[in-house]
Amino acid sequence: MSSLITLITDFGIADTYAGVLKGVILSINPSCNIVDITHQIPPQDISEAAFALMTAYTYFPTGTIHLVIVDPGVGSTRRPLLIEAENYFFIGPDNGVFSAILRKPGLKSVIELTNTEYFLADVSSTFHGRDIFAPVAAHLSQGCACSQFGAPISDWVLLDWPQPSMVTAGEAQGVILHIDRFGNLITNFSRDFIKRVMGNRLFTITCCGAVISQIIPSYSHAEPGELCGVFGSSNYLEISVTNGSARDRLNARCGDMVKITEVDLDKNIA
Amino acid sequence: MSSLITLITDFGIADTYAGVLKGVILSINPSCNIVDITHQIPPQDISEAAFALMTAYTYFPTGTIHLVIVDPGVGSTRRPLLIEAENYFFIGPDNGVFSAILRKPGLKSVIELTNTEYFLADVSSTFHGRDIFAPVAAHLSQGCACSQFGAPISDWVLLDWPQPSMVTAGEAQGVILHIDRFGNLITNFSRDFIKRVMGNRLFTITCCGAVISQIIPSYSHAEPGELCGVFGSSNYLEISVTNGSARDRLNARCGDMVKITEVDLDKNIA
Amino acid sequence: MSSLITLITDFGIADTYAGVLKGVILSINPSCNIVDITHQIPPQDISEAAFALMTAYTYFPTGTIHLVIVDPGVGSTRRPLLIEAENYFFIGPDNGVFSAILRKPGLKSVIELTNTEYFLADVSSTFHGRDIFAPVAAHLSQGCACSQFGAPISDWVLLDWPQPSMVTAGEAQGVILHIDRFGNLITNFSRDFIKRVMGNRLFTITCCGAVISQIIPSYSHAEPGELCGVFGSSNYLEISVTNGSARDRLNARCGDMVKITEVDLDKNIA
Repeated sequence: MSSLITLITDFGIADTYAGVLKGVILSINPSCNIVDITHQIPPQDISEAAFALMTAYTYFPTGTIHLVIVDPGVGSTRRPLLIEAENYFFIGPDNGVFSAILRKPGLKSVIELTNTEYFLADVSSTFHGRDIFAPVAAHLSQGCACSQFGAPISDWVLLDWPQPSMVTAGEAQGVILHIDRFGNLITNFSRDFIKRVMGNRLFTITCCGAVISQIIPSYSHAEPGELCGVFGSSNYLEISVTNGSARDRLNARCGDMVKITEVDLDKNIA
Repeated sequence: MSSLITLITDFGIADTYAGVLKGVILSINPSCNIVDITHQIPPQDISEAAFALMTAYTYFPTGTIHLVIVDPGVGSTRRPLLIEAENYFFIGPDNGVFSAILRKPGLKSVIELTNTEYFLADVSSTFHGRDIFAPVAAHLSQGCACSQFGAPISDWVLLDWPQPSMVTAGEAQGVILHIDRFGNLITNFSRDFIKRVMGNRLFTITCCGAVISQIIPSYSHAEPGELCGVFGSSNYLEISVTNGSARDRLNARCGDMVKITEVDLDKNIA
Repeated sequence: MSSLITLITDFGIADTYAGVLKGVILSINPSCNIVDITHQIPPQDISEAAFALMTAYTYFPTGTIHLVIVDPGVGSTRRPLLIEAENYFFIGPDNGVFSAILRKPGLKSVIELTNTEYFLADVSSTFHGRDIFAPVAAHLSQGCACSQFGAPISDWVLLDWPQPSMVTAGEAQGVILHIDRFGNLITNFSRDFIKRVMGNRLFTITCCGAVISQIIPSYSHAEPGELCGVFGSSNYLEISVTNGSARDRLNARCGDMVKITEVDLDKNIA
């Protein structure tokens, strides 16, 4: 049986940690297909890992096993989890990294991994990715049933996920969730949220002292160097500089506040 | 049917963009083999992507599909292309990134991708890699004929590719095309060009204020720390520092001018 | 026949060198599975490559072919090797990178690669990874016997590997072997060495001017920001800062000295 396992970790690519995961998986299931989503989650940054998973997992075939290993609590009492939801499987630590999955409808089972039969023989206290999560993923990819790995739990950890909110009738407040390689600032204003609160009314974006009134369909609709707003590929509002970096322009950081404000046309006209 | 798709992008490896491409491809053709050539093309740098493709594509099996996504014009009127040439397929934006392929003999067909049947159901205006190029590559890898994806065009975009030129009878001028991880400065002087213009005559290289008279077969033929010229693995003249970085030594950048000058032996002897 | 080849190189990921290796391998054996262990070995750093190999190779299935290409001597007289040991194969330059394998029992054969029939047709003097090592690995993965690639040698190159040593009865001296992405300082004090020389006696660690008396089972057993000692996933003593970077805290570098010193309880009590 061939199957697909994806990897999201904070291991980086200079050490052998990610390679070792793959060796462990292929030692158990040699025909498994392994896809790196990213190993560049900032060390111990559970929120960034949750964001990465959220933007990627639905693009994979049903049945895909998503392994997420950002695990500052390794070796403590935090539990190792296996989640079945929306025709996918998710394996990793119970530290909130799966919050988006756990909050959605479609949750089939949440199992605490306790059956050591599916772990490596020696479990270290510093690398459960290698010793617990990877071997469990490999055994699962061979067709083991979820229930074989442990017993269901219901008191999992959830992350406080920053939600945008209305501060006045015409103004909403959010944050920068993620900054991508291009320096695009990805906010937590979803297209749906903005549609709901702004309707078709014009709005401006305020972020790091800049006010942006230009919302365009794609980066190429602004002149090179122009600061603009775009609904990005994950349907969140992004602040971008065409052929440049909004991060550098605004000296922006993850978590910085972003506001969207309805344009008062009467005022403007008057 | 199993097939091979390679990826050259400017997505970097910290975001999930490259992983999402793979998810889309494997959702359509689960048995496809995907190889990363590089995701580290500098953002929007079409020339670097063209150089990367040029140095790599011929080393892959015939039938390989090379996906190149460096796409600053995404969402504008720039066309999405499928090219068949030299027993390979090339998919990406019509922005000049395929110039080397399009200029060579052996071009079989150049198709504008218009058949939305092979795109994802929702095509965003910011991520055609995911919504158009990856699904087309996946369908092609399953055996679809090129003609199914759209109609032929003949007015594709070509990049001005910097060619070396003679400035006097004994002197040629070129540029640094690329600087690699080792700090080697890869010039646009091909072995063939130098053979043609210099024959077997001695020459010196001038770059960033340094004059280099030592052309050696491999880095290890100079002492550690010595600046030298080497014909690199792609048969271009490289400026190198053995066990060091010519980039750092000369403070060199892509596009910097390089000269090769015939050595006037009479003058030297006198 | 499907087989597994791993890659450890200093090629980085911005150039096409690693992609080209894969193209060469797949052109010879299209069903070969290729796993990147790392391409981020610092340029020409044979010791770091040896360390990476040592920490990773045993986690792969028996029969795996480990390709290690950190090759400052390319184009010189350094020999290309194929090693069979412990049910694995190792291919790369004879520059000491395989020292750990060559020093262990279980060595089956060490072959100098001389049979050009298994090389690419044109062998450059700067990229034997592409022209010699990758094609040999691919042919080996198809079932060629080791003896077909060349003749045995016995005078291979060995690296001086830094061993910890006792400086007084109660004090041992070692070095930092590697610093990982998390800023953990991985020393050359193995768990076995410390067990042997310290028994169950308490000890402190001295490194870069800091004295560490807290040896804990995993990072999460110290408070965030605390400096501590941990036996890491490869069973070496590591100096860590919980949820932080010991490298940054101590301004530490590879090769820096580390001491472990027995705690004189009588003295402390008195």
